[in-house]
Amino acid sequence: MTFDLLSTDKNSQARAGTITTDHGKIETPIFMPVGTVGTVKGVHQRELKQDINPDIILGNTYHLYLRPQTEILEKAGGLHKFMNWDRNILTDSGGYQVYSLSSNRKIKEEGVKFKSHIDGSMHTFTPENVMEIQRTIGADIIMAFDECTPYPCDYQYARRSMHMTHRWLERCVAHLKKLPFKYGYEQTFFPIVQGSTYKDLRQQSADYIASVGADGNAIGGLSVGEPAEEMYAMTDVVTAILPKEKPRYLMGVGTPINILENIALGIDMFDCVMPTRNARNGMLFTAHGTINIKNAKWKDDFSPIDEMDITWVDTEYSKAYLRHLFSVNEFLGKQIATIHNLGFYLWLTREARKQILAGTFRVWKDKMVKQMDKRL
Amino acid sequence: MTFDLLSTDKNSQARAGTITTDHGKIETPIFMPVGTVGTVKGVHQRELKQDINPDIILGNTYHLYLRPQTEILEKAGGLHKFMNWDRNILTDSGGYQVYSLSSNRKIKEEGVKFKSHIDGSMHTFTPENVMEIQRTIGADIIMAFDECTPYPCDYQYARRSMHMTHRWLERCVAHLKKLPFKYGYEQTFFPIVQGSTYKDLRQQSADYIASVGADGNAIGGLSVGEPAEEMYAMTDVVTAILPKEKPRYLMGVGTPINILENIALGIDMFDCVMPTRNARNGMLFTAHGTINIKNAKWKDDFSPIDEMDITWVDTEYSKAYLRHLFSVNEFLGKQIATIHNLGFYLWLTREARKQILAGTFRVWKDKMVKQMDKRL
Ligand SMILES: [Zn+2]
Ligand SMILES: [Zn+2]
Repeated sequence: MTFDLLSTDKNSQARAGTITTDHGKIETPIFMPVGTVGTVKGVHQRELKQDINPDIILGNTYHLYLRPQTEILEKAGGLHKFMNWDRNILTDSGGYQVYSLSSNRKIKEEGVKFKSHIDGSMHTFTPENVMEIQRTIGADIIMAFDECTPYPCDYQYARRSMHMTHRWLERCVAHLKKLPFKYGYEQTFFPIVQGSTYKDLRQQSADYIASVGADGNAIGGLSVGEPAEEMYAMTDVVTAILPKEKPRYLMGVGTPINILENIALGIDMFDCVMPTRNARNGMLFTAHGTINIKNAKWKDDFSPIDEMDITWVDTEYSKAYLRHLFSVNEFLGKQIATIHNLGFYLWLTREARKQILAGTFRVWKDKMVKQMDKRL
Repeated sequence: MTFDLLSTDKNSQARAGTITTDHGKIETPIFMPVGTVGTVKGVHQRELKQDINPDIILGNTYHLYLRPQTEILEKAGGLHKFMNWDRNILTDSGGYQVYSLSSNRKIKEEGVKFKSHIDGSMHTFTPENVMEIQRTIGADIIMAFDECTPYPCDYQYARRSMHMTHRWLERCVAHLKKLPFKYGYEQTFFPIVQGSTYKDLRQQSADYIASVGADGNAIGGLSVGEPAEEMYAMTDVVTAILPKEKPRYLMGVGTPINILENIALGIDMFDCVMPTRNARNGMLFTAHGTINIKNAKWKDDFSPIDEMDITWVDTEYSKAYLRHLFSVNEFLGKQIATIHNLGFYLWLTREARKQILAGTFRVWKDKMVKQMDKRL
């Protein structure tokens, strides 16, 4: 993997760059749609490629490990072939889902023992076996196994957890050296900064992660319930330390406004379930604010879903029709809203990139943040 | 509406023809996908048009009357505009759903009083108001309000019901004369033959329906649980009487085999929820038999869903991937299976038409019936 930093904004820390892997280019800033278990919910791979057009999507190690299981993915020749997606994929380490989905998990130095949320069977994730699982899934970018602390988090716990995450990182790195690539293309490993909402811990962790010299770095443990200002403060602390010449990935963030603010703080990569999950609940993001399409006010509004026409669904269907689909609980409504929202998120990061390259990012960002902060 | 009968098979009663309406041509035999409440479940209108490509789809008056309600459809300028579908639409009369979905309905000479399955509110369908509702929905082909008897049905009940359906038909015809078209294009009215599984009643009903001189005729009350042989026997009795120069629509039929056998008996139009409903349950129809994609035997079968490649999903996705989507209950699985099944049904009726025009229908039909009667 290579990263070319093309431009840094003069009036913020926003950056435009290009990541190149064996599955092609990733133009940053980028939003990565979440393809939980080998599918972006309700979206055909063809639509994802042609209509939404992201350079990279995300898969969840926890979900893929449980189903279809690594044995099937290995027989398929990796996740790319299994789901028929020939662009980039990033997998998380599974930690976040273990902490949030499993009713029963024990975190020890060795690793995490957890109960499957599907069938109650017991499993263990360690830094070593999570690297092996991610080798088998075969994503282009794979993530360190870490502990993601909740919010709020006691300082002592956050500190102890951060150091354990650092020790786990050493074990990830050591173990990866023994594991060759499986499918003839390279995989790039990203370590993760932790430290909860404590500035000194975030600095310590960023120093440590920077010292590892990985080809890209991530920030975890944010967007877990803290106020946006605390999130931005932590991003700011960390991006000041992480090397400029490596891509920076802020995990699990966020609203369109969160994304623009974090781009301004020097973040290059994002992922979040919000555009897809909220779409399924009838919430649409637009450049002029959010729409709750279930609202009765849309029942005889036959205007296009979004006049901006970023994706074809925006003018193909009317607000009244989409509202009808939600009110009769027809899945096509969720499909339409998902394409709309993902199309909008990808438009937003592409537009941010253009504005950075043109030197106009800061003014544009301030305008967009203001106009997106509305309910239509 | 016009109907051009292009060819009748020498070795069966199969016919190829072309219906022309203000929304374009319908090449028969045709299968009409069911778009219950203004959407073919899980399929974008764009996919329906480009990938499945039917000349006509069906909407359900009962469902559309309850939601979004006729007021919204009228404001939209009719169902075509509301759902953005510019090809043909046929609406049923709502009777079938009243009898099958409402827990509480009373059938009288005046009409049917029923409780909504959505909110328990009381409504009445009469021949007159159902014609008004269908005028407002604005389908190209609209159906008579009838009673659809269950199977089995007592002879006396079937006879009384049939005569009431005939009296209702007179009221439909009389009332339609008072109702102008609403949206600047023509609507064609089809009466419906009833008579349960009794040959003499079917003959009486077909004689009466033929005497009305409508531009097309339908056969109702079949595919309600009777053995296939009884269905074919009734179709045979009725098509011998209905005028040859008018299209014949067999309502609610059926399996791919049912469709081919009824084409051989002189039917031109079909609709059924089977390809869509069964798709959502993981059952795929193919030219070589049916596939239960949930079966564990497919879990590491990375071959295409269907080598015939009738629609793009067939080779885009593997059986193992589709099986995975069903086992994790991801909606994309239902989307893929629905496109596959509808694509197959439309292929089947298009191919039947080609074989009729080529004079090879009977041999082809016998071969297809044999090879589709398998579980893969
Ligand atoms: Zn440490
Ligand atoms: Zn009669």
